[in-house]
Amino acid sequence: MFSRISLALILLLHHASALWPIPRSLETGTTLLKLAEDFDFKLDIDSPPEDLTNAIARAKDLLENDKLQILVPDRGESNRGGLENAKSLSGLTLALADNAPTIRPIATEAIDELHARDESYSLIVPDDGSDATLQANSSLGLFRGLTTFGQLWYDLDGATYTTMAPVTVSNDSPAYPYRGVHLDTSRNFFPVSDIKRMLDGMSWVKMSTFHWHVTDSQSWPLGIAEFPELAEKGAYSTRETFSPDDVQEIVTYAAQRGIDVIMEIDNPGHTASIAFSHPEHVACFEGTGDVVGEPPSGQLRLASEATLNFTLDMLTAVASKLPSKFFHTGGDEVNQPCYNRDQQTQDELGKSGRSLEDAIGDWVDATHDRLRSIGKTPIVWEEMVLEHNITLKNDTVALVWISSEHAASVAAKNVRIVHAPADYFYLDCGGGGWLGGDLGNSWCDPFKSWQKAYTFDPLANISASQEHLILGGQQLLWAEQSGPENLDPIMWPRAASSAEVFWTGPTLPDGTDRVAAIAGRNKTAKTEVLGRIHDLRARRDDESDTKRLQEDDEEEEPSQRGYNYTFGWYAQWTRVQKYFHLRE
Amino acid sequence: MFSRISLALILLLHHASALWPIPRSLETGTTLLKLAEDFDFKLDIDSPPEDLTNAIARAKDLLENDKLQILVPDRGESNRGGLENAKSLSGLTLALADNAPTIRPIATEAIDELHARDESYSLIVPDDGSDATLQANSSLGLFRGLTTFGQLWYDLDGATYTTMAPVTVSNDSPAYPYRGVHLDTSRNFFPVSDIKRMLDGMSWVKMSTFHWHVTDSQSWPLGIAEFPELAEKGAYSTRETFSPDDVQEIVTYAAQRGIDVIMEIDNPGHTASIAFSHPEHVACFEGTGDVVGEPPSGQLRLASEATLNFTLDMLTAVASKLPSKFFHTGGDEVNQPCYNRDQQTQDELGKSGRSLEDAIGDWVDATHDRLRSIGKTPIVWEEMVLEHNITLKNDTVALVWISSEHAASVAAKNVRIVHAPADYFYLDCGGGGWLGGDLGNSWCDPFKSWQKAYTFDPLANISASQEHLILGGQQLLWAEQSGPENLDPIMWPRAASSAEVFWTGPTLPDGTDRVAAIAGRNKTAKTEVLGRIHDLRARRDDESDTKRLQEDDEEEEPSQRGYNYTFGWYAQWTRVQKYFHLRE
Repeated sequence: MFSRISLALILLLHHASALWPIPRSLETGTTLLKLAEDFDFKLDIDSPPEDLTNAIARAKDLLENDKLQILVPDRGESNRGGLENAKSLSGLTLALADNAPTIRPIATEAIDELHARDESYSLIVPDDGSDATLQANSSLGLFRGLTTFGQLWYDLDGATYTTMAPVTVSNDSPAYPYRGVHLDTSRNFFPVSDIKRMLDGMSWVKMSTFHWHVTDSQSWPLGIAEFPELAEKGAYSTRETFSPDDVQEIVTYAAQRGIDVIMEIDNPGHTASIAFSHPEHVACFEGTGDVVGEPPSGQLRLASEATLNFTLDMLTAVASKLPSKFFHTGGDEVNQPCYNRDQQTQDELGKSGRSLEDAIGDWVDATHDRLRSIGKTPIVWEEMVLEHNITLKNDTVALVWISSEHAASVAAKNVRIVHAPADYFYLDCGGGGWLGGDLGNSWCDPFKSWQKAYTFDPLANISASQEHLILGGQQLLWAEQSGPENLDPIMWPRAASSAEVFWTGPTLPDGTDRVAAIAGRNKTAKTEVLGRIHDLRARRDDESDTKRLQEDDEEEEPSQRGYNYTFGWYAQWTRVQKYFHLRE
Repeated sequence: MFSRISLALILLLHHASALWPIPRSLETGTTLLKLAEDFDFKLDIDSPPEDLTNAIARAKDLLENDKLQILVPDRGESNRGGLENAKSLSGLTLALADNAPTIRPIATEAIDELHARDESYSLIVPDDGSDATLQANSSLGLFRGLTTFGQLWYDLDGATYTTMAPVTVSNDSPAYPYRGVHLDTSRNFFPVSDIKRMLDGMSWVKMSTFHWHVTDSQSWPLGIAEFPELAEKGAYSTRETFSPDDVQEIVTYAAQRGIDVIMEIDNPGHTASIAFSHPEHVACFEGTGDVVGEPPSGQLRLASEATLNFTLDMLTAVASKLPSKFFHTGGDEVNQPCYNRDQQTQDELGKSGRSLEDAIGDWVDATHDRLRSIGKTPIVWEEMVLEHNITLKNDTVALVWISSEHAASVAAKNVRIVHAPADYFYLDCGGGGWLGGDLGNSWCDPFKSWQKAYTFDPLANISASQEHLILGGQQLLWAEQSGPENLDPIMWPRAASSAEVFWTGPTLPDGTDRVAAIAGRNKTAKTEVLGRIHDLRARRDDESDTKRLQEDDEEEEPSQRGYNYTFGWYAQWTRVQKYFHLRE
C-alpha cells in the first residue's frame, strides 16, 4: 500500500461511487457483488421500442469495456480477497410498472411537453446474486435507470464489481425537467461527431436538453433547404456547415439518448452573418463605434416588412423540421444605436408611426405567433422580459443569463424561467479577453469552477408561489475561445454540476444539504461529492489509467482520452481524498 | 470571399507570420516565394554532429508535412495566381561563421555555462530563388536558425510558400539565456512521451531550459539506483515512475533540442513522500493543523545528522548523473510549526545548540557545498534569500515566484534571478481550489492569460547596475489540477509568451515596445502579435483544419490534435482579425 489509511476512512472511501447525478432516493450497503461473466439484461416488455433495445446494447457494451478501477489509493486491491467469495449478479430485468401507459420510443418521450415527461424509475440490486430489477413508467425512465445501473461498477483485473450492494433506488426522478447544456456553434464550428460526443456525456448525467445556439453574427453554419444562400455565403467554409441531414442526425441521436434539442436562431440582434447573403436585411453591418457590441455588428432590420417576412419564413423553414416543442428566438443584446443610425430603419419606423420599442414588440409578437402556429413554444433571453417594453404571451420561457440575481425580477413578471446565469453557469469565463489586448479580464471573470456551479440555488429569492415557474437550468459554452479541440476539457466535468443541481435538487439522499456539502464545512459530505465527480471524470475517459500507462510503456503515442478534463480539476483524487480531513 | 477587407488590411494580414519568438532583427518583404519540390538543406560543415544532422532531417520532415494554410479569411486563396509565377527556393545552406570555434553537438552546447552559450544566427532567404543561407557560431545557433526558417512556410493545395521574401535576420540572439518551462511531476505523473511532446513545443519556440520539479510531498516518482525504495514506496504506482533510463532519455532528448534539463529535488520542505520509505527522516508526516501547508505535511528532519547524510548522498546520486551545470534544491515554504512540534528535531537542535534558522542555514550550506563538489551550481526558491536568515554563496541563483514585486528585493541582495512570478507566469491559477470546497478562488487567481504573461517586464524595478543579475525566466505548471490529459491546453500556447519575452526582449524588431503592443492601444501591433501567436498554435496542431474536417466527413473519430489549445484562446483568428479595428 502506498499510504496509511484508517479503517473508518477505508469504509468511507469504499462507499464512494460514480453515481452522478446522485439519485434522490438511495440506499446502499457495503456488500461486494460481482457481475457474472454471462450477465445480461432481460427486457420484460412486449414490443420494446428499438431505441430502448439499442440503449440496452450500449449499456451492455459499457459494462464489458469500462474498466475503471475504483478511485482509492490501492485502486481496489484490498477487495481482491472479498471478491473471490462475493456473489455474482446474472441479470437485470427491465419492466414497466403495472399501470404504466403503452411504451413509446425514448426519442418520443424525450420531446414531450416538459411536465408530461416521466423520467422516474426504481432500481433494486440485491446483494445475494438474485436478479436486479429496473422498473419505470416509460422508456425514458428505464433509460435513466439504465444509466444509474451503469455507474455502479468497477473493475479489478477483469472482475466487474460493486462495493455498495444491496442498492435500492425508490422512484428516483428529477427535481426539474429542463436540465441541459448550451453550445454556440457560430463563433466557432463544431463538427457533428464532436456534438455527438457531447450528447453522450450529457446523457451519462441524465441531461434532458441541448440548447443549440446554432447561428450568430460571426458565422451562419445552418444549412436550410429553402434558404441555402444563408450558409453558402455565411458559413466559415463549406465544410463548416450543418446540412439539413446533419441537423436531423443530431436531433435523432440526442432524442434516442433522452435529450430534446432546442434550437436557437438569435434575433434580431446577433444576425450580422445574414448580411453575407442578404445585406438588404441587416443594419450596421461591420460598423464601428457604439453600434458594436461584440464585433461584427449587424442586426436584422426589424422595422422592415420585407425583413420580417424573410425572417418568418426562415424560422418556419427551420423550426417546422424540428421535433422539439420549443424554439428559441434569442433577443439578447439588441443594440439601439445600430437602429438609430440606420436610415432605412428610421424611415420605416417613421412611416409606420412606431418607436423602436414598438417595433421590437411587433417583431417578437410576429415571430412568436408564427412559431406558435406550427406548434412551438418560444424561448427568449432575459432582456425580452426585463429590458424591453413589450408584452410577451404567457407561454414564453425566459433564460436568465446576465446574473442569477435577475431571476427574481423575471419571476415577478410571472414568466417561466430556465436558469442560465453567467455568474454560475458560463463555462467560457476566466480565460482573458478574446479580442487580444485584455490582460486577463473577460467580462464574466472569474472562471466558474464546478464547485461554484454546484452551489447554485434554483430557488434563491423565488417565493413558494413562484416555484412552479422554475423549469430547470443549464450550463453554457460560448465559443469565441473554444472549438472542437478543447470542447471536452472546457465542458467536462464542470457541466455535470448543473446536472446534479437540477436532478437531485437541494438535498442529497442522505439528507445533507447539497450546497452545504461543498460550501460548508462538512468534510464527509465534501469528500463524498468530490469522490463522485472524480469518478465521473475518470469513467468518461476512453481507457483506464492502467491501460494508458501500458501504452506508454509500449512507446505508443499516449491515447488522447475521450474526455480530457478541465484544468480546474483535481487530478489525483485517488490520493488526495485521504488528506481532505487534514486541510480544514 | 466571406468578407470585405480593405487592401491595406490585406497587405497587413499577409505579413502576418508564424515567427515566434520574433527575431530581434528582422527585415521582410512582400514577395511570394515557393519551396521547390526538390528543396533540400545543404550542410557546409565538416564532420557535423549527429544531433545537428538529425535536427535538419526533422526540419525537412516538418516542411514536407506541415500543411498550415495561412490564417487569413481566405486561407491564402488570393495568393494562388501569384504563386504560379513565384520563384522557387531550392536550398538552404547551413554553415559556421569564419571565426567560429570547432563545432560540437547541440546537446553539448545546450548545457554550457549560461553565458558561454552562443545561440546567435543569421538567416537570409532571397526572393529570387537563389539559395538561402543560415550561418551561426555554433550548432546551437544553427539549430535556432533552423527553427526560424521552419516558421516561414504556409501551404496552399500542396504548394509550400512564404509571403515575406526576402527575409533577412541579422545576428538574431536571445535577450536572456534562461528561457524555460517548469513542470511538476509529483502532484500528478506525466509519462515520458508527454514530457517529450512538451520538449518539442519548447524547442519550437527556442526555449533553453526545462526546470523539472520531479518530487514533492504527494509522490516520489524518481527512480534512483542507489535509493530504489524512494520510488518503490513513494511513487503513486510502479508505472508512475521515472527509471534512471527514463531520466537519461528525457535529458538527452531535451539536449538534442537545445534544452538544458535542470532537475529540482525540493527540500527540506515538500518532502512528505520520503516518509513512505524513510519515515525516520520526516517530521510531521500527514499532520494536522498549522503544520499543514499543502497536504500532506512532511519535511526532512533538517537538524538530524543522519537525515542530512541521507539527503547529501541522495542528491549526489541524482545530480551526478545529470549533465546540467545547475541543480535546484528548492527551499520554499518551510513550515516552522512542523519543526517546533517535532520532538526529535527539538532535541537535535538543543543538543547542537542551534536555532531552527541556524539549522536551515547549515542544511543549505551542506547540501549546496556537496552539489558544488560535483560541479553543480545550486538554485533555490526566493524564500531562501528573502525569508531566512542564512548566507547563500554568491553563485546561487534564486527563482522569484511569490510575486514579481519581489525581484527587486532579491536583486538588492546581489543574487542572480530567474523570473518565475505567480502573478504573471503560473499556468495553474484560476481554476478554483483543488481541495474541493473552494468556490473559485485558487490562491493565485485569476487565470494568467497569454497576454498577461506577454506583458511581463524582466527589468521592472531593476537598476542598470543590477541588470546583469537577470538570467531570464520561465512559466510554470504546478500539477495539482493537471495531468497528461490537459498538459497541452494548459501549457500551450500560453507558455510561448515568456519565450518571446526572454528571447526578443523589450522591443519588437520594427521598434515597437513589446509590452505596449499588447497592453497599449496600438491596434496594428496588437493584430500582428495576435496573428503570430495564433499561427503558432495552429502550426503545432497535428493536422490542418481542412484535413480534420475531411476526417469528420469520412465519419472517423475526430483526431485529437497534437496540441489542444487553452480555453483562453481565441479560436477564430482567421476571421476576427478583420474586426479588430472595429473594437477599439
